[in-house]
Amino acid sequence: MNNPLYPKALKNLVDSLRILPGVGQKTALRMALYLLERNPSGAQKLSAAIGSAMADIHKCTQCRNLTDKEICLVCSDPTRDESLLCVVENPADVFALSQSVEYKGLYFVLMGNLSPLDGVGPEDVGLDLLESRLAKGIIKELILATNPTVEGEATAFYIDEIAKPYNVRVTRIAHGVPMGGELEYLDSNTLSHAFRARQQF
Amino acid sequence: MNNPLYPKALKNLVDSLRILPGVGQKTALRMALYLLERNPSGAQKLSAAIGSAMADIHKCTQCRNLTDKEICLVCSDPTRDESLLCVVENPADVFALSQSVEYKGLYFVLMGNLSPLDGVGPEDVGLDLLESRLAKGIIKELILATNPTVEGEATAFYIDEIAKPYNVRVTRIAHGVPMGGELEYLDSNTLSHAFRARQQF
Repeated sequence: MNNPLYPKALKNLVDSLRILPGVGQKTALRMALYLLERNPSGAQKLSAAIGSAMADIHKCTQCRNLTDKEICLVCSDPTRDESLLCVVENPADVFALSQSVEYKGLYFVLMGNLSPLDGVGPEDVGLDLLESRLAKGIIKELILATNPTVEGEATAFYIDEIAKPYNVRVTRIAHGVPMGGELEYLDSNTLSHAFRARQQF
Repeated sequence: MNNPLYPKALKNLVDSLRILPGVGQKTALRMALYLLERNPSGAQKLSAAIGSAMADIHKCTQCRNLTDKEICLVCSDPTRDESLLCVVENPADVFALSQSVEYKGLYFVLMGNLSPLDGVGPEDVGLDLLESRLAKGIIKELILATNPTVEGEATAFYIDEIAKPYNVRVTRIAHGVPMGGELEYLDSNTLSHAFRARQQF
């Protein structure tokens, strides 16, 4: 962003938009010009929305999901079964599951994965909080729904170890051929997992 | 954006991000969660950058390009040849030309195209200002660099008509096969134009 023709405030805006995931130099410039030329009222709203989101939204003290209350809507819902706890990596996973799964238990959001090499230890993903909830003895089943990546699997194994001393059933969501997927286009890793994990028909 | 699990401020942020060009529901949610979870300081900067860009940046009174001064850096540059004026649709076009063309004249930015059906008339794209500049008699060549789309061509024709009464040479940037392009993959419209507009080798 070194073109001397750009006014400084425009340079600043383009550089700030570039922090967004998936936004490079050209897209950021297109977005900035769109805001300035076509949608100044939308730009003001966006600026205000970022500010108030940063001010209002924080982590739920029980499940670490994003909320604007002290305890989020899911955790404070009395109709939910508090003996079930589903562990996910991100708030987006809670939203995805809540839209597609008939699940009436609670969630626990790690906000990432264990990654000792990057300095992300158990406390950073809230595993101390998770253990203290297991210690209360209310949770009967812990559903591990971290992503089937190297980090997600490692985190799942670690949580399984944490849960061992407590009388809790630990389950993992199924991995295999996605519904509607075709075997010939699937990666060999998924395919061999699906084959090994075959079940009685 | 009707999932009741979303806090209101997050809904607001996602809806505000969706006004950006090329950003749909899923991308907006990804951006919002990224800002909240991973980059709160970047989010604050973005909010401030939008605000100050909206406050500081406006149209140059001579060329309608975006600037934070009354007259932009290009128009106020005494080393530029003010007998040459290049008409473009958008600020992005000025930046693109300034990075690739050895051109030391001035620019005029329409900020769009003539589009009577959408209620965009000659004044809305600054053609009254353009005509008053032509009337001063300083400009000797008017280079029409609007896009070779239906609207861009129509706007170029209209400007050509405006320029007729004034003693000014009106030129159009060349259209044809892009450098490095291959004939067999080119659309027939460009190809037939390139053929008709062939020049002495």
